[in-house]
Amino acid sequence: MKKIGVVLSGCGVRDGSEIHEAVFALLAIDRQGCEAVCMAPDADFPVTNHLTMQESGDKRNILVESARIARGNIRDIAEVKAADLDAIIFPGGFGAAKNLCDFAMKGAAAVVHPEVSRLLNEMATAEKPIGAICIAPALIATVLGKKYSTTLTIGNDAGTASEIEKTGAKHQECAVTGLVVDAKNKLVSTPAYMLANRISEVYEGIDNCVKAVIEMI
Amino acid sequence: MKKIGVVLSGCGVRDGSEIHEAVFALLAIDRQGCEAVCMAPDADFPVTNHLTMQESGDKRNILVESARIARGNIRDIAEVKAADLDAIIFPGGFGAAKNLCDFAMKGAAAVVHPEVSRLLNEMATAEKPIGAICIAPALIATVLGKKYSTTLTIGNDAGTASEIEKTGAKHQECAVTGLVVDAKNKLVSTPAYMLANRISEVYEGIDNCVKAVIEMI
Repeated sequence: MKKIGVVLSGCGVRDGSEIHEAVFALLAIDRQGCEAVCMAPDADFPVTNHLTMQESGDKRNILVESARIARGNIRDIAEVKAADLDAIIFPGGFGAAKNLCDFAMKGAAAVVHPEVSRLLNEMATAEKPIGAICIAPALIATVLGKKYSTTLTIGNDAGTASEIEKTGAKHQECAVTGLVVDAKNKLVSTPAYMLANRISEVYEGIDNCVKAVIEMI
Repeated sequence: MKKIGVVLSGCGVRDGSEIHEAVFALLAIDRQGCEAVCMAPDADFPVTNHLTMQESGDKRNILVESARIARGNIRDIAEVKAADLDAIIFPGGFGAAKNLCDFAMKGAAAVVHPEVSRLLNEMATAEKPIGAICIAPALIATVLGKKYSTTLTIGNDAGTASEIEKTGAKHQECAVTGLVVDAKNKLVSTPAYMLANRISEVYEGIDNCVKAVIEMI
């Protein structure tokens, strides 16, 4: 059974993984007859109260909160090697741009969590497929954009696209349920909640994205 | 557009709503062309660390954590009346049996959160459809079992089924993606993670359940 890494960044759109996006990635992986390997960094992050949308002042742990989405079946990303995986998927949510890296604060000058950067570089070197959802392509661009001239999408937000292009990656506009496929780099991206107004659009785009990633294995 | 209540109990299988179940209910509602009205009680609950599966000793708020699944679009259940809804769905997760009531601790003698009990009774009086997923039928039985002799399922766990029957409800065994339909009481239940080994089974059962509930409107 093919093993597909799913890199989580917490549990909630404003301070972690976007929950719907992560769940639809897990569903699509299972429906393709593959096994999801959930992982997250073991590090703290500042909590956003999702009722008020204000930072609460508390801290939680990325790995511990991501375990909620994974029902406890999750690994510390530091223990995962590219050799353990056939492909890897990055759901979105602000956690991808605040916890896995600080693109949300620093744009193209972002610093990436060292284990996330290490695993992404390993996957690229091994020429294994990568899927990136919503804002997660900004993370991929930060790590791989300059070296591989990756082409990817975060939908059509001009400011974010401009920051992405500063990394050396190429941004391509994309419709909500569409894909940008960078065949050379085996990289597939889809806008999901960067553009979606309905949960069913998110489902459709992510189902398409995961299928395309798995077909590249 | 028909409005379907979704009663959440936190965010995570061990101390709140089962995340996959809640997300698939939201997806099915949208795909049926209906609007989800997410709600939860404004009350505290004890936190379970989902990496270690141990209680952490911390407390969080049910409404605030449920807001993660609802992306902030959620109401205090105390403010929701049956007149606001065309039907209502209860995802599972331990939160349905620990936070919305204490069936997990007390079985048929469970005490139910007063606003959950009030809204469920209003829905039954108004003869509006109710869907209950995974362990949530135990909550429905506790509130409505005696008065309405409801028929429902939590899959095939004999101990839980026996406690459910002590409420006055009838338990019927059911396959993982199947439904138990109590047409007289407009009540549909499905086992989901009470039986499922795969996320795709959970998706299929909940999609069936939500469709059946909406057809009863």
